[in-house]
Amino acid sequence: MPTLREVGEFEAIRRVLAARPAAAGVVVGGGDDAAVLRLDPARELVVTTDAFVEDRHWRAGLIEPETIGARLAAANLSDLAAMAARPRWALVSAGLRPDHDLDALLALDAGLARALAAHGAATVGGNFAAVEGAEWLSLTLLGDCAAGRAWTRAGARAGDLIAVTGSPGRAAGGLSLLQRHGVPAGETWWSALAAAWLAPPARIEFARNAAETEAVAAAIDISDGFAADLARLCEASRVGAEIAAAEWPQDPLLDRAAAEIGAEPRALRFAASDDYELVLAVRSGLRGALEAAARALGVPLAFVGRFVAAEGVFEVGADGARRPLPREGWDHFARSSRKTAVPPSR
Amino acid sequence: MPTLREVGEFEAIRRVLAARPAAAGVVVGGGDDAAVLRLDPARELVVTTDAFVEDRHWRAGLIEPETIGARLAAANLSDLAAMAARPRWALVSAGLRPDHDLDALLALDAGLARALAAHGAATVGGNFAAVEGAEWLSLTLLGDCAAGRAWTRAGARAGDLIAVTGSPGRAAGGLSLLQRHGVPAGETWWSALAAAWLAPPARIEFARNAAETEAVAAAIDISDGFAADLARLCEASRVGAEIAAAEWPQDPLLDRAAAEIGAEPRALRFAASDDYELVLAVRSGLRGALEAAARALGVPLAFVGRFVAAEGVFEVGADGARRPLPREGWDHFARSSRKTAVPPSR
Repeated sequence: MPTLREVGEFEAIRRVLAARPAAAGVVVGGGDDAAVLRLDPARELVVTTDAFVEDRHWRAGLIEPETIGARLAAANLSDLAAMAARPRWALVSAGLRPDHDLDALLALDAGLARALAAHGAATVGGNFAAVEGAEWLSLTLLGDCAAGRAWTRAGARAGDLIAVTGSPGRAAGGLSLLQRHGVPAGETWWSALAAAWLAPPARIEFARNAAETEAVAAAIDISDGFAADLARLCEASRVGAEIAAAEWPQDPLLDRAAAEIGAEPRALRFAASDDYELVLAVRSGLRGALEAAARALGVPLAFVGRFVAAEGVFEVGADGARRPLPREGWDHFARSSRKTAVPPSR
Repeated sequence: MPTLREVGEFEAIRRVLAARPAAAGVVVGGGDDAAVLRLDPARELVVTTDAFVEDRHWRAGLIEPETIGARLAAANLSDLAAMAARPRWALVSAGLRPDHDLDALLALDAGLARALAAHGAATVGGNFAAVEGAEWLSLTLLGDCAAGRAWTRAGARAGDLIAVTGSPGRAAGGLSLLQRHGVPAGETWWSALAAAWLAPPARIEFARNAAETEAVAAAIDISDGFAADLARLCEASRVGAEIAAAEWPQDPLLDRAAAEIGAEPRALRFAASDDYELVLAVRSGLRGALEAAARALGVPLAFVGRFVAAEGVFEVGADGARRPLPREGWDHFARSSRKTAVPPSR
């Protein structure tokens, strides 16, 4: 009778999913970024749920209630972006202490509503329960897409290109600096890094436009870290991946953060960081179409390697040397079982 | 800046709902048993979310993991029954301690799956987060119904009859006896009361068949207590209610429980109790059709009074005397602010 700490979050999820009975109308079940449900021959419902726990996902003083709400929205919106779905409706479930300030709750709910509204969605239901210890927030987000058009993690083939939006690692760097210095009073050199953690983007519009190009064969959002989430996509697609170190986009801010934190820049880039950016498998012949879609929306998009037939995720240096990319994502239930460059935010 | 304890759960919800922007596709928003969302001209999605918190909604030793899962399903299924919707898919979000036993988690998930499957629904997604203190479980349940056919709380008119399924108060009586005596080793005189709390019914099939009769004008499920939930239906429908004491169904088991607990039987019946039974507003001319629907499924159904034009909820004694029915439901955030006959289960 092992505990969750002993087996780890992902093995626990695997065991739970394996034990669940098959269900009618389920096109994609648990284990992807979201579930896909058959509504009618033309349309599918895409649903996801994600939760934040006080002192683990947020800490009072480091983040305002509005921003907590917006960040919770972003975490869930990101799952729908990774499926190329259109967000529609959300239900929020919260465990709150009786001494929770009503105005703070209204601010949190407003931050959530604004972040959802920016992508066409709205909160339509919820539940409040009283707690004594740490507070928690759980959001369920419903979206839809044309039947058969949702991206999954499972479509990558050897030869597809690996693309990534934004600059992974910025969220971890920003959080680490926030924890060291507190919220900066004004603009600082690391404001963009703080923003990557406090107000992550939701790549919804990019994903919807990218889906039109048919360039994307598989997708995952970065909620645990680039290396861990890429490895997850590889497993689902039964391929390996080679990251070309030389092609990784320069990010002087991230390098400076790494120096200040005392971490290697590549540790920040690849290890635990909840950037809510997208990792995409791209059909090589359609690279141009995807780049155009990104450019049209001003979304940073980098091509950083390719999927290969052999198992495993490797980084290929400028000298051609291949070294395994450690799978250093965040596991909720493991205690200090992984080396992470920075304190994990989830 | 009042706290949630100061304003209470329902005023907090009212304030949150009032501040939320209107949203596209929402037929019924927050404040009913579930939200109703327009999928297409013919069909609506009916969605609800409900959560349980350890030591508040369940206590280890008093309830097995399978039963916690089944009870969480029942709480949500009951919301869909109160809308006459068909349950389809569920997402479960959980905050679990790292020392949580994996087999116990699998048992909980299996209990949830079985309870959902009994009504045609299945878990299709979820999220696990680690917590240090009390564990929690939040379920979001999605169902559907023909467009415009969902029951709400708002359709009762003066002259409609008040019907109730089962025998409200049994859950509170059962919980109180469980707390006094622990889980009985074998069959006892109060086994049916314990079952009312441990394994509440989900009136899904009855509600679906009842909807066909068109006898039901409004509905609510009893999650806080008969008096409180009836008062809520009255507010939504802008009517009052008169309960006829003489017509209330006899329940010798409930009377015996009340005697043992040292409570008035009517306090058990009307005050805080999460029975997950249904309170219905019934068009008086269609009473027979509804009774037939209940009889066909063996569902106990009692007609206990009628809705009236005057405000308030009253109990009318055998002598014709009217006395107000105190609204003694459970408020998550109030601390000992209401007299309840038994320790609340939620």
